[in-house]
Amino acid sequence: MSTYTPPLKEMEFVLRELAQIDEIAKLPGYEDSTLDTAMAIIEEAGKFASNVLEPLNRTGDTQGSQWQEGYKVKTPDGFKEAYKEFREAGWTGMSIDAEHGGQGISVAVNTLVEEIWRSANHAFSLCPLLTVGAIHALELKGSPEMQAKYLPKMVAGEWTGTMNLTEPQAGSDLALVRSRAEPQGDGTYKIFGTKIFITYGEQDYTDNIIHLVLARTPTAPEGVKGISLFVVPKFLINEDGTLGARNDVNAVSIEHKLGIHASPTCVMQYGDHGGAIGYVVGEENRGLEYMFIMMNAARFAVGIEGVGLSERAYQRAVAYARDRVQSRDVGEKGGASVPIIRHPDIRRMLMSMRAQTEAMRALAVVTGAAMDHMKRNPDEQVRQHSRAFVDLMIPLVKGWSTDTAQNVTYDGVQVHGGMGYIEEAGAAQHYRDARITTIYEGTTGIQANDLIGRKIGREGGRTALAVIAEMEKFDAKLAKATTPDLVAIRAQFASAVKALKETTEWAIANFNGDIRGVFAGAVPFLKMWGITASGWQMARAALIAQQRLDAGEGDATFYTSKIATTRFFADHFLAQASTLKHVITAGSAGTLEMAEEAF
Amino acid sequence: MSTYTPPLKEMEFVLRELAQIDEIAKLPGYEDSTLDTAMAIIEEAGKFASNVLEPLNRTGDTQGSQWQEGYKVKTPDGFKEAYKEFREAGWTGMSIDAEHGGQGISVAVNTLVEEIWRSANHAFSLCPLLTVGAIHALELKGSPEMQAKYLPKMVAGEWTGTMNLTEPQAGSDLALVRSRAEPQGDGTYKIFGTKIFITYGEQDYTDNIIHLVLARTPTAPEGVKGISLFVVPKFLINEDGTLGARNDVNAVSIEHKLGIHASPTCVMQYGDHGGAIGYVVGEENRGLEYMFIMMNAARFAVGIEGVGLSERAYQRAVAYARDRVQSRDVGEKGGASVPIIRHPDIRRMLMSMRAQTEAMRALAVVTGAAMDHMKRNPDEQVRQHSRAFVDLMIPLVKGWSTDTAQNVTYDGVQVHGGMGYIEEAGAAQHYRDARITTIYEGTTGIQANDLIGRKIGREGGRTALAVIAEMEKFDAKLAKATTPDLVAIRAQFASAVKALKETTEWAIANFNGDIRGVFAGAVPFLKMWGITASGWQMARAALIAQQRLDAGEGDATFYTSKIATTRFFADHFLAQASTLKHVITAGSAGTLEMAEEAF
Repeated sequence: MSTYTPPLKEMEFVLRELAQIDEIAKLPGYEDSTLDTAMAIIEEAGKFASNVLEPLNRTGDTQGSQWQEGYKVKTPDGFKEAYKEFREAGWTGMSIDAEHGGQGISVAVNTLVEEIWRSANHAFSLCPLLTVGAIHALELKGSPEMQAKYLPKMVAGEWTGTMNLTEPQAGSDLALVRSRAEPQGDGTYKIFGTKIFITYGEQDYTDNIIHLVLARTPTAPEGVKGISLFVVPKFLINEDGTLGARNDVNAVSIEHKLGIHASPTCVMQYGDHGGAIGYVVGEENRGLEYMFIMMNAARFAVGIEGVGLSERAYQRAVAYARDRVQSRDVGEKGGASVPIIRHPDIRRMLMSMRAQTEAMRALAVVTGAAMDHMKRNPDEQVRQHSRAFVDLMIPLVKGWSTDTAQNVTYDGVQVHGGMGYIEEAGAAQHYRDARITTIYEGTTGIQANDLIGRKIGREGGRTALAVIAEMEKFDAKLAKATTPDLVAIRAQFASAVKALKETTEWAIANFNGDIRGVFAGAVPFLKMWGITASGWQMARAALIAQQRLDAGEGDATFYTSKIATTRFFADHFLAQASTLKHVITAGSAGTLEMAEEAF
Repeated sequence: MSTYTPPLKEMEFVLRELAQIDEIAKLPGYEDSTLDTAMAIIEEAGKFASNVLEPLNRTGDTQGSQWQEGYKVKTPDGFKEAYKEFREAGWTGMSIDAEHGGQGISVAVNTLVEEIWRSANHAFSLCPLLTVGAIHALELKGSPEMQAKYLPKMVAGEWTGTMNLTEPQAGSDLALVRSRAEPQGDGTYKIFGTKIFITYGEQDYTDNIIHLVLARTPTAPEGVKGISLFVVPKFLINEDGTLGARNDVNAVSIEHKLGIHASPTCVMQYGDHGGAIGYVVGEENRGLEYMFIMMNAARFAVGIEGVGLSERAYQRAVAYARDRVQSRDVGEKGGASVPIIRHPDIRRMLMSMRAQTEAMRALAVVTGAAMDHMKRNPDEQVRQHSRAFVDLMIPLVKGWSTDTAQNVTYDGVQVHGGMGYIEEAGAAQHYRDARITTIYEGTTGIQANDLIGRKIGREGGRTALAVIAEMEKFDAKLAKATTPDLVAIRAQFASAVKALKETTEWAIANFNGDIRGVFAGAVPFLKMWGITASGWQMARAALIAQQRLDAGEGDATFYTSKIATTRFFADHFLAQASTLKHVITAGSAGTLEMAEEAF
């Protein structure tokens, strides 16, 4: 059986060398985010994950959360107790600013802590994840009274939070939201409507749940500019902070899903018995705008799910490949059967899983570090520069990493052969769990449209071209390397950057003239950006690794492995850039040609 | 809700134009395989599939087959009755030669009939599929008495058949088979051992099951040359053909799988109560050799699963995309929300699903037609030529098509957005069901090793280069086309063939010198061959479609769609050839570099 172990050496390397955590620790408010402190936190998280969360992962899958009479949800055996331990150990407030009662660790470090939760128990981790989202909304736009009422309990994990956006007719298209909020004249509203796909909309962990709900007031304009954000607690809160009356909100059913079975995905009914009492957050009609401000954090968080699930799938596949003995070495006529990790195709899959996981992690942590600078760097120009970089990277971290996690968890099943298809082996669960990540919080298509439209087309590609210029600058440095691996890596990186630049310029040039043609290539464009941007971080890592090897410093096995992994990534993934350029710039003809009726 | 409809126009086109069914109908024994007869059969199969099999597909998934006390298996509600109908309608013997009581339809036609069963109810269809496998074994090597005893009942579907190869320690590596067969001196054997992953090893459809079992006799040499094939009926057969004593073989459990829940995957225990009575098929110690003879048919059949599941996933996705209204047209500022089929990225996914499905189907049916010529063509040279072609194509039909079906069913989920993750929507089932197809009957890695090793390396690439020469010959014809679509298709096809040739020559040249390096690229090599060989069939189809359009013949919408689909396939898939060449010829360094301990 494979057990989860956080990849500590790799995490330390990424923080130290790629995220440059020493620079983050200089930022006001992040003085505690030193490498030593970070690694201490990560090690603790790793222990908690391995000892408490991971052993429940399969139980969670087989039992699932169950809806029960009285609008209750029973989470799988052990989850309630694990949540209590998780909360008591202080993990719920890890990323929340100290002024609201959290530990305020830097985003770069938190990225790895979150990765660990996802690796160990994706479905469990969604409850604290959604709570953090609700906390952010209240931190951002809640009144001081509202903050005082809800935040301490939520940060401490004593209450959890949910985000209620989707309705049956309004998925990606929130303009179609129909839930109503009727002002009662006393500052409160009565909320009516049905919300679907509400993660942990009901649970048995805590005695209250704070729902954040999008709805329309009677005077609201149509479309996206008429949506307001409300707080709707499951139990109202008395003046003294104790729990009051049960509010008119109920989980009327939960979905039967492909994966993340332990995470109850609820249909929430508001106002079936007179109206759920809600309180507006910020101003009326600005709900969607608030959602957009929180969107980067939410999408980033889902991107990390891709990393965590990939790491876990990789570890499980390696364990199986070492253990499973089958067939002789290729080219051997006689001799005994060998562990399948010896077979070239199994190695190819394991390398592919490993290389992609490292690439995703590097991209996520570097983006996390930029989020830290965006938030705390005293230099306004650095903050602006970081924000632009983050805005460009978010669709990659979300869209590309979750898409890539599909390949990784797919190979995780494949390495297991027949056992991969048997649920007991565990590989299939990662595959099923991962499948949601390209869908929720905006599908891959929506991330790709965000990248090509909002992030590049709309600003004439300013940030995108600036980031490509940074890649070119790094390429000039990489071009001086002389080892065969680095020369090979550089060749693919340089070609990929060139193709990326030409393709991005093509997209900018055609954005107004052939918008359907440009958008037809949006997902391959996202993929091209994801591969090249993460390949850039991998190439940075390989160059540093070579410098350490040349200097005779540190763990030689780690550094040579990092170079091998980057070499693999270059020849198998960066090498796709030329094809992707063709697909994007020439592929729309075939995409758009056929008559709609002919499908 | 989406319902299944067989793509009749497309099927007719493929039979008529690509498989050249008129030529098949001239072969002795296939006189009935005219286009008209074929289409009549296909239409009937389509009706049966839509009316009887498809309505059970989701029930089959949610209920699954259940193991019950007394070593029984209860199949899902309605399956037993559907099997009875299926059998009574004569479908079980459709592909079996008339001399053994079947209808003897040509492989090309049967390919499409089988596709229809897979589309409608993959899990159901596995029982007749395995029975055909067992029938082939008995047709091939069973004694006349054995054939007389078993074949009539099996061909009529009154008894089903199974194939028992795998053991816990012996998956792909059948050299490790340990099941024992002890001769009793009366021509019978007693069989002892455990077999796993036995599809329909037990069921409640029929009153007997004929198991074909690999086992070793006490005097057998070690390894693959000491394996014999036995018939082990669940109930022994009396002299008069009635059922006799219950044999000592039991399904002791069934697996919990990712998909194909209705298909019971059994652990079979032989000989726990004194030994299961078995009869040797053919000669002792030649069991694996017999398996190899049947392997093409078995792998071909699994390849068709890829086609069928892809077609079904495509139809479901199109239905959803037409129905689901969400967001405005790209580039529109105001206006109403539109059906998502309007959105360029949804169209890209639908086109991708469609193009890949048509490519897989074309490859399968053309290979099926070659199997017909291999079997029945009076010209020995044509038979040999066809056999070589078939041998080369089988790993593509199995390995590439099933791998491609993963992409197609993946997109099928993605088109559904959030609903894709909800099991009720049905898209997730196709995704889960399809996942087995790259695993059983030899994983993709094993197909790729077969291609690069047995089919190309071992014969110095003779057949492979001859097939590439045929592609070049067709390319010269295609080069004369002048419409923009055909010019674009030709550009990608010509590049792909060139890259394929260079890569194949590289593989041949390095097969002895760097065998690990060559095998490290086996799966990308399989993919390259799959894309190019199926792209060749698509390009043939597009050229014919253009000729029909030019002549003003036939259904213009069908022909223009065929050209658009081929254009898409060219720009999105054939365009990958240059990258694949790099991955194969340069990618092994990264694959093989890292120390095994460092994983």
